[in-house]
Amino acid sequence: MKQFQSTLILVCIFCISITTTFAQSSPVMGFTEEAAKKQLALEANYDKLLKSNNLDDWMKYMTARPHHVGSKYDKKVVDFIAKKFKQWGYDVKIEKFDVLFPTPKLRLLEMTAPTKYKASLIEPPVEGDDSSTQIEEALPGYNCFSIDGDVTADLVFVNYGIPADYEELEKRGISVEGKIVIAKYAGSWRGIKPKLAAEKGAIGCIIYSDPKDDGYYQGEVYPDGPYKNEYGVQRGAVMDLPYSPGDPLTPGYGSTDDAKRLKIEEATSLTKIPVLPISYHDALPLLKALKGPVAPSNWRGALPITYHIGPGPAKVHLKLEFNWDLKPAYDVIATLKGSTHPDEWVIRGNHHDAWVHGANDPISGLVAMMEEARAVSELVKKGFQPKRTMMFCAWGAEEPGLIGSTEWVETHAEELRKKVVAYINTDGTGAGFLGAGGSHTLEKFFDQITHKVQDPQKGVSVFERRNAVEVVSGRKPWSHYKLSALGSGSDYSPFFQHLGIASFNMGFGGESSGGEYHTMYDSYKLYKRFKDPTFQYGITLAKVAGRTSLRLANAEVLPFEFNHFSKIVNGYLNQVTKLADKLRQETKTENRLINSGVYDLVANPKENIAAPKTKTEIPYFNFAPIENALNELKQQASAFAKASKNGVQNIQNKTAVNQLLKDMERSLTRAHGLPRRSWYKHHIYAPGFYTGYGVKTLPGVREAIEQRNFKEVEEQVDILASVLKDFSAKIEKAVSLMN
Amino acid sequence: MKQFQSTLILVCIFCISITTTFAQSSPVMGFTEEAAKKQLALEANYDKLLKSNNLDDWMKYMTARPHHVGSKYDKKVVDFIAKKFKQWGYDVKIEKFDVLFPTPKLRLLEMTAPTKYKASLIEPPVEGDDSSTQIEEALPGYNCFSIDGDVTADLVFVNYGIPADYEELEKRGISVEGKIVIAKYAGSWRGIKPKLAAEKGAIGCIIYSDPKDDGYYQGEVYPDGPYKNEYGVQRGAVMDLPYSPGDPLTPGYGSTDDAKRLKIEEATSLTKIPVLPISYHDALPLLKALKGPVAPSNWRGALPITYHIGPGPAKVHLKLEFNWDLKPAYDVIATLKGSTHPDEWVIRGNHHDAWVHGANDPISGLVAMMEEARAVSELVKKGFQPKRTMMFCAWGAEEPGLIGSTEWVETHAEELRKKVVAYINTDGTGAGFLGAGGSHTLEKFFDQITHKVQDPQKGVSVFERRNAVEVVSGRKPWSHYKLSALGSGSDYSPFFQHLGIASFNMGFGGESSGGEYHTMYDSYKLYKRFKDPTFQYGITLAKVAGRTSLRLANAEVLPFEFNHFSKIVNGYLNQVTKLADKLRQETKTENRLINSGVYDLVANPKENIAAPKTKTEIPYFNFAPIENALNELKQQASAFAKASKNGVQNIQNKTAVNQLLKDMERSLTRAHGLPRRSWYKHHIYAPGFYTGYGVKTLPGVREAIEQRNFKEVEEQVDILASVLKDFSAKIEKAVSLMN
Repeated sequence: MKQFQSTLILVCIFCISITTTFAQSSPVMGFTEEAAKKQLALEANYDKLLKSNNLDDWMKYMTARPHHVGSKYDKKVVDFIAKKFKQWGYDVKIEKFDVLFPTPKLRLLEMTAPTKYKASLIEPPVEGDDSSTQIEEALPGYNCFSIDGDVTADLVFVNYGIPADYEELEKRGISVEGKIVIAKYAGSWRGIKPKLAAEKGAIGCIIYSDPKDDGYYQGEVYPDGPYKNEYGVQRGAVMDLPYSPGDPLTPGYGSTDDAKRLKIEEATSLTKIPVLPISYHDALPLLKALKGPVAPSNWRGALPITYHIGPGPAKVHLKLEFNWDLKPAYDVIATLKGSTHPDEWVIRGNHHDAWVHGANDPISGLVAMMEEARAVSELVKKGFQPKRTMMFCAWGAEEPGLIGSTEWVETHAEELRKKVVAYINTDGTGAGFLGAGGSHTLEKFFDQITHKVQDPQKGVSVFERRNAVEVVSGRKPWSHYKLSALGSGSDYSPFFQHLGIASFNMGFGGESSGGEYHTMYDSYKLYKRFKDPTFQYGITLAKVAGRTSLRLANAEVLPFEFNHFSKIVNGYLNQVTKLADKLRQETKTENRLINSGVYDLVANPKENIAAPKTKTEIPYFNFAPIENALNELKQQASAFAKASKNGVQNIQNKTAVNQLLKDMERSLTRAHGLPRRSWYKHHIYAPGFYTGYGVKTLPGVREAIEQRNFKEVEEQVDILASVLKDFSAKIEKAVSLMN
Repeated sequence: MKQFQSTLILVCIFCISITTTFAQSSPVMGFTEEAAKKQLALEANYDKLLKSNNLDDWMKYMTARPHHVGSKYDKKVVDFIAKKFKQWGYDVKIEKFDVLFPTPKLRLLEMTAPTKYKASLIEPPVEGDDSSTQIEEALPGYNCFSIDGDVTADLVFVNYGIPADYEELEKRGISVEGKIVIAKYAGSWRGIKPKLAAEKGAIGCIIYSDPKDDGYYQGEVYPDGPYKNEYGVQRGAVMDLPYSPGDPLTPGYGSTDDAKRLKIEEATSLTKIPVLPISYHDALPLLKALKGPVAPSNWRGALPITYHIGPGPAKVHLKLEFNWDLKPAYDVIATLKGSTHPDEWVIRGNHHDAWVHGANDPISGLVAMMEEARAVSELVKKGFQPKRTMMFCAWGAEEPGLIGSTEWVETHAEELRKKVVAYINTDGTGAGFLGAGGSHTLEKFFDQITHKVQDPQKGVSVFERRNAVEVVSGRKPWSHYKLSALGSGSDYSPFFQHLGIASFNMGFGGESSGGEYHTMYDSYKLYKRFKDPTFQYGITLAKVAGRTSLRLANAEVLPFEFNHFSKIVNGYLNQVTKLADKLRQETKTENRLINSGVYDLVANPKENIAAPKTKTEIPYFNFAPIENALNELKQQASAFAKASKNGVQNIQNKTAVNQLLKDMERSLTRAHGLPRRSWYKHHIYAPGFYTGYGVKTLPGVREAIEQRNFKEVEEQVDILASVLKDFSAKIEKAVSLMN
């Protein structure tokens, strides 16, 4: 669902050499030296079993026809996956959830003034790619969970439609009240655009892909190159994901057959206004017809026009009607029981549903996962048995809102909370550099893996190749692989942020950019030409993700540790206090400038830019409770490191320690969740309320500051301090067991 | 000639209040308190005499037809100006120089592969502006002093065609040897583009105006708005101006009737390859046909294409032939003799020749200057007589290379060196903020003026309005008006950098941007609609420049001082040493990275970007001679300030002191000039050898470092130190006379 961050900007140079100062306690964390040797041998065998032809063949099959939620071919894909897993000896279950999945009944967009234009709303076939002819079977361009609507109003261009853009509009005295907004894709998760537009009083929302962001400005367009041609339309969900994902009719609980479903009008995560995505072919006449102030230079795209803001004189009529049907979301769950700890689960997942053919998203990640499962099954045939239970899950209905995984997690929440050690997610992947995010309690563990797996082109580890980007960019070389913090946008979210299960999300990118994301053109043909033609990076992903599962499944002591986590959270607190200081200073300065009248002195009378309005000044906050809690965390993390340093063989009470470690991430959650969105229970990581996919760390405190909700800052400081204290107490308990 | 810097970027905010900490020794520098009162009363009367209708009427007359060098209408403009000055009682001379002025005989540009396209090379008339129909009389789009040529080759896109761009090409293994380059206008003075292209082995050069820089990307295009429409072509000189301006056939001496002229083939400042400017209408098919690597993102313009670098497959044929004729350049020199010091001259100048109609460039500045002269003549009628001689000059043949002013200066060099106190230049001007550059020995003097003249829209001084830009941008508020350093691009250059005469260049801008510069559309109609419709800023310029002339003409002691200059030059040295340190550090780091092989690790095999090559490391330089000289300068400047602090009435030997002060700037020159360009004799300020108009301060030392010419750095350090020592010795002499 989420577009993999594929542009690594390489800037100039200040740093010096690639050195890895990482001191390993064992070659494989969680293993005795003896067990580590066996594990490394196992992994060497595992690597040899991986075959890129499989990825190619399976992708070809699964992307042969559109396979969105509820389509005939999605069921064929599901059966294909289930059959494979069965063949490989897994215990396979298909779990079906009937979930709300609106599809378009009527889509109309027309300009009624100053000239007439009716948007074509089609993605025509392109030469050399037959899959683009399957238009009848495919879902056309639409935003899933837009409400029905029939609105006519003047148009306003709002750039990306994010909070900063509305501040610019305010400066110009432009309101979107009663208007229809047109926003560019990118800059935030798409669902933020109609959400914010509605909050500002707009009555409709159009989203288009500007050629600057993923069209001809970036490179040759399809079929000449991988970028978006003038007709490409990015489909995608617009439910209020930062409020909660999953079926809108069963918020917080599974959409089982007997579940009580809300009426559609009771569902709170649908958009408040109708919203439609369009191509730049259809956006051009609309934007060209706008007058009013010229858009600020950082708003302008690559269309050959002067970008104006409006409002009007372009007036548009947007009419949308949807089939509000329940459709089956199928989750394929393949299980390989653990020999020693069958009730400790390591779960690996990737979704199977696509907006159209989905060669990149999600099939490129799915075929890597399937090859992992197949290779593991070959190892099993040769006598291998994982200590813990390994599960491979192919999720349905991810695209409309992580629905298949969320419903499964909500349905089995109690059992999962008890049993799951970690969840490892992938989604679309390509060629280039390893990108990975996840729980920082597993950062040290994951770092070891990134040094073991080789980049397929360069003869160095995937760590070294990724680190070269830092070095060439003039930043400090990495001492270890740095996991990014996870926001949202793929199936880890229910595991991680709802249940508090330690999670990973990973993939390769940076040498396979394009504009096919969620369009008719995310096809096998495009993937083979421009993404990862020989699947060498798909195989490399299988090596990284496979090691992650296998090591977690076989570890004698679960490879969590807390020094990394302690440092990271300290860094987040540092960011948050700096944010408060910066906002305080900026507000003070800005208010003084506004009151001094200096804005009027620089204002161009022709441009009618009003001075900004003064804002409430930011008080000083008491962060001491968090600082004290972090001090305690640091001490306990250090005690844990000391207790671990003589090797796994010297740790006492391993079973009890493992039980504690497995549940550690859970203690970073609270049942009441975050303010105004109780589904999100993790207090270290959450998707931003106004960024969507983009992460906000220490979200309760950080967003209260950003939203200038000063009372809530204090409340959230106390909650976070208590979360961190509980976490430290758990470590202390583990340490006392270990010694 | 030079396009006035009209975009003031207003960023965010850190600074606080507008305070002027400037402590004035007298309300009017160089005057006793009593004389200052009289002077201020004179200026108040002067202001009342200024009439915006005159500017409007004169602009309308002088822009009625194209009036380039050698045209019939240019002679009419010259006669008009001369007649006015005569009417106002000035002693008027028209000096004529016959100078080389090539005009197009044949212009052909066609693409011969992969498809055929013949460039239209026309600027068609636009609705509502009759002057755009005078195509027969106008010079078409061409670059003056391009050589004749007939070349056919593959095309290469080189961005702005500046040194950094060729480094990018090298990284991709792309050579322009034997190719024709296409470069965007902007990023440097245009003449740098063919100069550098030829140095790199190219055989032809095309320059086009990308819509991103001054076309639809910036705003509505003409006639709907002031920006460049698809047919607009920027004409302009491409002689090697940073080598020397003026008639290429009489380098360093006046083009008088009896002067010995070089043969055309001996003239060294012509281009080495043929060069032609075109519109983006004509550039589009060529750029669209290029393949090869996608251009880096900061190279891409606003045309609706993927910008590729080439070379080819676009192949172009460029054929140019010129009439290599001598044409008359007329300088109108109007003199008002000084009562007390007739042999001390204050010269005010602005050119009159245009590329086509030239409403903005140069007539908007010329009409302000004429109104200054008229108002002064009215004061004379009421009994005023300036102490020093005031001269108003309307220069010819500025556009092809500052030719009229340069030939006049070269012809009268000896007399000018003896007599001129200062030169005050203007050129095109518009609405907005005061921009001024000049000799920093007059910065304090000029600052007083900027506090006295009011902005016509905002009810504050032009200083305060300009300073508001600093404040709103978050920079430190100005303690005084900061003169920029002068490079080249208008008629101050021969006075300032060749003779060492203290100079100013000034104008208003920031609220009158457009794309009309040097096109068919720089018309009266456009000026009236989009630039300074009521000429209120033209009048304000007349107030600022008029005061500058009048105060210099009437001062009892010439208002030079040296603390500002001493601080400024210290700042320049600081920049230069930092530049050396930065280059040294970057070279070291970059060489280490190159040798480590890390560039290969990040390289995308698809993109074929080679690692950069290692460079010679930068040694440490001995800057002590300059530091010692600056220390001495600081002491003498301070002694001078002390000697001045009790007011003009207490200064001894005023006449002798004035003689010394008048010649001060001259002692910053050396007869041998700068390395490889002896015409440029000033050792503090010069146009950059590879920037063209852009200034390089301490040019001898700075450019030797930039060009990694280490031996020359040492030589230039010694020269600069001796220049500064002589300057300090002169101040010391003045101080000894004053006490």
